[in-house]
This record gives sequence, structure tokens and C-alpha cells, in this order.
Amino acid sequence: MKHSLILLGLVLSVTVMAQSPSAYNISGKNSPQINPDNTITFHFSAPTASKVVVNLGKDYEMTKDEKGVWSVTTEPQFEGFHYYAIKVGGLSVADPSTYTFYGCSRYSSAIEVPESEEDAAFYTPKQGVAQGAVRSLKFYSEACKEWERMFVYTPAGYEQNPDKRYPVLYLQHGGGEDETGWIYQGFADVILNNLIAEGKAEPMIVVMNSGNVASFEQMITEDVIPLVDSRYRTIADRKHRAVAGLSWGAKQAYDLGLGYPQYFASMAGFSGIIVIGEFNRTNPGFRDPKQFKEAYNGIFSDARKFNKETDLLFIANGEAEGNHLSDMSKLLKKRGIKNIYYQSPNTAHEWLTWRRSLYNFAQLLFKED
Amino acid sequence: MKHSLILLGLVLSVTVMAQSPSAYNISGKNSPQINPDNTITFHFSAPTASKVVVNLGKDYEMTKDEKGVWSVTTEPQFEGFHYYAIKVGGLSVADPSTYTFYGCSRYSSAIEVPESEEDAAFYTPKQGVAQGAVRSLKFYSEACKEWERMFVYTPAGYEQNPDKRYPVLYLQHGGGEDETGWIYQGFADVILNNLIAEGKAEPMIVVMNSGNVASFEQMITEDVIPLVDSRYRTIADRKHRAVAGLSWGAKQAYDLGLGYPQYFASMAGFSGIIVIGEFNRTNPGFRDPKQFKEAYNGIFSDARKFNKETDLLFIANGEAEGNHLSDMSKLLKKRGIKNIYYQSPNTAHEWLTWRRSLYNFAQLLFKED
Repeated sequence: MKHSLILLGLVLSVTVMAQSPSAYNISGKNSPQINPDNTITFHFSAPTASKVVVNLGKDYEMTKDEKGVWSVTTEPQFEGFHYYAIKVGGLSVADPSTYTFYGCSRYSSAIEVPESEEDAAFYTPKQGVAQGAVRSLKFYSEACKEWERMFVYTPAGYEQNPDKRYPVLYLQHGGGEDETGWIYQGFADVILNNLIAEGKAEPMIVVMNSGNVASFEQMITEDVIPLVDSRYRTIADRKHRAVAGLSWGAKQAYDLGLGYPQYFASMAGFSGIIVIGEFNRTNPGFRDPKQFKEAYNGIFSDARKFNKETDLLFIANGEAEGNHLSDMSKLLKKRGIKNIYYQSPNTAHEWLTWRRSLYNFAQLLFKED
Repeated sequence: MKHSLILLGLVLSVTVMAQSPSAYNISGKNSPQINPDNTITFHFSAPTASKVVVNLGKDYEMTKDEKGVWSVTTEPQFEGFHYYAIKVGGLSVADPSTYTFYGCSRYSSAIEVPESEEDAAFYTPKQGVAQGAVRSLKFYSEACKEWERMFVYTPAGYEQNPDKRYPVLYLQHGGGEDETGWIYQGFADVILNNLIAEGKAEPMIVVMNSGNVASFEQMITEDVIPLVDSRYRTIADRKHRAVAGLSWGAKQAYDLGLGYPQYFASMAGFSGIIVIGEFNRTNPGFRDPKQFKEAYNGIFSDARKFNKETDLLFIANGEAEGNHLSDMSKLLKKRGIKNIYYQSPNTAHEWLTWRRSLYNFAQLLFKED
């Protein structure tokens, strides 16, 4: 059974059989290997090290053979994307055998425990599906007083149809990640290519920025949106502009969507809460009706007005993350705020949850015309 | 003195003073540091390691203080871009404090020893200069029977001028690198942005592919060129198509430019030879007149025809690399083959040489109209 994964377009074929090398290994490297029971086996040579540990969720101490090759097999892992590190001599580093991803505030190794070919189809590139492109664009942010980079996805046909204009989704990464995350780890471009080709999502532009800046909201509203609207063929009104993010980026997306409704009529948070008051999972500020109604310039104080003016409020997370977001969705509904909740079956706080969340969110977006 | 470097648009400001953190350090990390005499100081914690080495051109053994922090200062380094690795317990890894680059056939750390602000201006982004964009585009290569990724630079104004068509430069990385090299390490986009803004280079599209494929020439001629010509607004003839590369990519560029003249009227090799016969620096096949005239379907057999049909043959390398390419240029001229040779002052086989080579080459390109 062949199963393909894309790394910003590098497609790495994985044969899902005994002892498959991970899809993120550099060509020719056979460690780590993913076993049929979803345990992971690591091995590499470090002949003069006295202790080597793989940290994948928890520490796994490796053992050394007579040739100086260290190895260990982990417990079974959830399907999906997992960062990991190697600790050698007390120094935590990326595995030299693998591609690296900006995560955990540095370049980290990762493994992808594959799900079935059928389940993975929505983020697997397909021959015959017209391919959009991802652009990297540098810009000087007046808000942040420094150069920044954004990634811009344009759908297939963007170049060939010079009169067509598109809605725009602003899409944010999580904590410790950056503007590369949604492409490198999330395959957002592949997901949109496939959805658009099947007629399940509106052709849209997707703009990905770093959330690791000092003046994020100001940068998006004063620098990024004007630049995107002047440079790309957008439909430059709030009905055709959405914002979404994951984890820490979900908070940022809500801050934009709820704090700047003049810019956005649709919003989504994947694996992250609407932060009102203290920032924690029990979120007393959110639960306190008075604080709730006063937050974000009182946007929730008139539920009917909010529902009329908001095209989509989408909330999602993974089943293994717990109930706090399904609870938040229910509480919002109880207070009259329309929203849609999606739960990703059997996944944790990681990119498989967020790929599925985007897949479901994108199909509901910009359908109001 | 402030000096800015770009990492695919992440601009990292370097204060060129005592103990400057390297421009490629992750935000907040202060190792490695570049000292005023161009020595480099590394330090990091690895309390339980018994030996740690920095490999930067050669091995430098680190020493450990009582807190478990290892440090070393290297000899002075040439200005420019240098890959390095850390070896701990016999395992060679990237430095966890830095951005990584695909080089040396894996994700490697690098330092940039900055040259003067004035000399670096041509690859430093400037406010007020219109910015092009770099697209990442996935495609299925029929030649290679797998998905590949290309990077495509389009100049500023590409989106705003839907009727304008552009010449195309196909640009290849070196051995152990990939299609990311010319943007991440080479700043090709910044160089072109600046040159085009100053009117020194024609606005052009630049296409960067992986050379690490089984059927490279077939992929470029049968998959890539048709895709680029159908998808982007190119001038799809040989006069408006050039190919260039560095090191191993120079060989590939010559193989395309000399082997497929129906596609390319201009070509360049940076720090790499035209390989005729045995592949080595003394290159006897190249020196043997008979082998020379028979190579590449006899393209050199009629110098007058070659000069008439070839708009530009450009050869470049760094002063510290030796004389073999200035010798090759002279030998070609002696045999009647017109070419232009550029030597980068005081640089080695690294990216500063190649940035300067591109800067000089691009100013001569597509000027025949």
C-alpha cells in the first residue's frame, strides 16, 4: 500500500508495511522507522556518547550495541504529526537523519504516524488535480518596524484568470511555530487544491503570517491586509475575509475576528479558546456573563446582531484534547451565539487535528454569496 | 552599524560590533557570536557530554566549564556563508540555536561572516524597493515518476501587469543542496528585486528546481519548461531562456545549455566546469581538441556559429578557489568561443561568491533585444 505525504511539495512515498522509514527522513535514511503497531524505532551511531535519549512525548533512553549504534523503540503513538528531539550529552538537538520543521521554537525533527490511505486522501496530492502555488513575500512592517515574511497561497487558475477576484483566509500557526507551519506541517495548500478541485470549497487566497511579532493585530490590519488587497486580486470587504488559527494562533484569530469585525465576517479557532479574562482552560472570564458581554467592545452583548453580521464562527479540536472546546461551543450557543463545532476523532493537540479542522472549516467558508 | 540579512524574508538585523550574535541564530539565542576579527565563538550547555566538537571547515574541540557549558573560538573565517556542524558523543548534528539550511545533504547550521554594509547592499532588502515574490509549486514529474517542487520567482509588478511577458532564468543549486538554496542561502530574490528596481537587470522570472533527481535533463526539458511556459507569462523562446547553476549545478547548467541549445541561448556556470571527458579539475577531455569539438553534439565545432547563436556564456568563481575557471575561460577564448569571466574578490567556494556571480550575470542577461 503506497501512501504519499508532501513536504512543501517534496513528496515522500511511504510504504505502510513493517519497518517503514518515516516520511520525513532525508532520502536514503532509514531511521526513524514506523512499525505496524505504531511504535517507532530509532537508531544511529554515536560511538563515544555515554547516554542518548529520544524525547517523543516522553524520554526514551537508548541502548548502545558493540558497534556504537544506539537504538530504542517507543510505545505506540497516536496517528498524526509529532515533534521529537534527541538528547545527547545533555544537549537537545534535531535528528540529523530527518527534515526539520520550525516548532517548539526551533528547528525540530518530526515523525508522521500515517493514517489509512483513504483517510489521508484529503491532504495527499493527486495527479490530475490542478495545483495552486504558495508564494513567499517579504514586506517591511511599519507596525513592527522590521522586515517580515508572509506565505500566500493562490488557487489553481489564479494566473490564468486575470479578471477573477477571490476571498481571503488569514491563517495562523501555533505557539513555537511560524508562518511556515500551515504549509510544511499542515499541507494547507494540498487540502485547498483538493477541496477546490472537487467543488467542495470556494477558490480562495490563504495568507499565512508569523504570529511571533510585537504588534500582531496592528501588523495584520495596517500592513498585511492593505498589502494583500493591493497586490492580489482579492474581494476586499469583510464578507470575503476570514481569520483562523490553531492553539495560540486560535487566540490571535479570535482577537482579530472579534476585535476587528469591520475586517472579518468569518472566523475559526482550532484547539484554542476565546480568551476573556484570565488565560487558562477553565477561563472564568469567559464564564462570567458580565465580563463576556463587555469583552471585545461588547460584540457578544447583542447575540442577534452578532449572528446577523457574522457569517461563520467555527470551533474545532481533537478528541484526545478533552471537552473544554465542545463546552465552549455549547456555552456560546446557550448565550445565543451561533457557532459550529467539529471534533477530530482520536487525535491530539497536533497537526492531523488541524488539517482535518481546516478541511471541515474551508467547506463552510465564503458560501454566503 | 546595522546590517540586515534576509532568511527567505525573515530579516535578521546584525549589529557588526564586538560579540555579535550570528544573523542565523534563532531569536534570542546568542551563540554563535561573530567577533570583530572574524573568529567565531560557540557556547552551549551539554553537561553530561564527554567531548564536543564544532566542525567549521575543520574540527575545533570545545572545553567545558564547571557549569557544563562548552565553548570554543575558531580561527578567523573568510567573509561569507559557511555551513558547520556540532559533533557530540560521535554524532554530528545541527546547532539547536540556529536556523538550518539544506546543505551537506541534510539540514545544516550555518554562519554568515558579514562583509561591509556597502558591499552587502546588493543582497540586502531596501525599503521602497518593490518586492517580487517566490512561489513554491508542486508538480508531478513524468520524467522522474514522482512529485517534485520548484520555486518560482516573479518580479515586482508581475501581478499588476497582466499583459506583460517575461524571460526566464533556470537556476540550479550545488551538490548536497536543493531547490531552496538560491532563496535561503543565496538571496536570489533580493538580488533581483534590487537590480530590477535600479534598472540594472531586465525583469525576469527565475525558476529553481532540485537537481537531486534521476532524470534531471528530461525533467527540465519535458516537464518543467512546458509547465512554466503554460502557467506563467513567459516569452517562450530560446532567446528569452537562460540556465545557470553553481558547482555541481554548473555542470548541470552546461549540460542543459550546451546539450539543448534549442531551449537556451544564454548560460552560466558559477564555480563549476564544463565537463567533457573525465570529471576532475585538470579535465583532460576538455583540453583535448578532438574530444572538445565532438562534445555536446559538436556544439563547439563551429565557433562562429556558436558565438552567433549564443547570447551569453558566463563563467565565474571565487578568488580563493584557484585558477581553473579563469584558465577554462581563456582556453575557450583561444578556441574562438566567446565568454565572460568574473572573479569574486577574496571569497571561497561558498554563497557569497555565488550571490556576486548572480549579481554580475543577471546584469548581462536578456539584453539582446
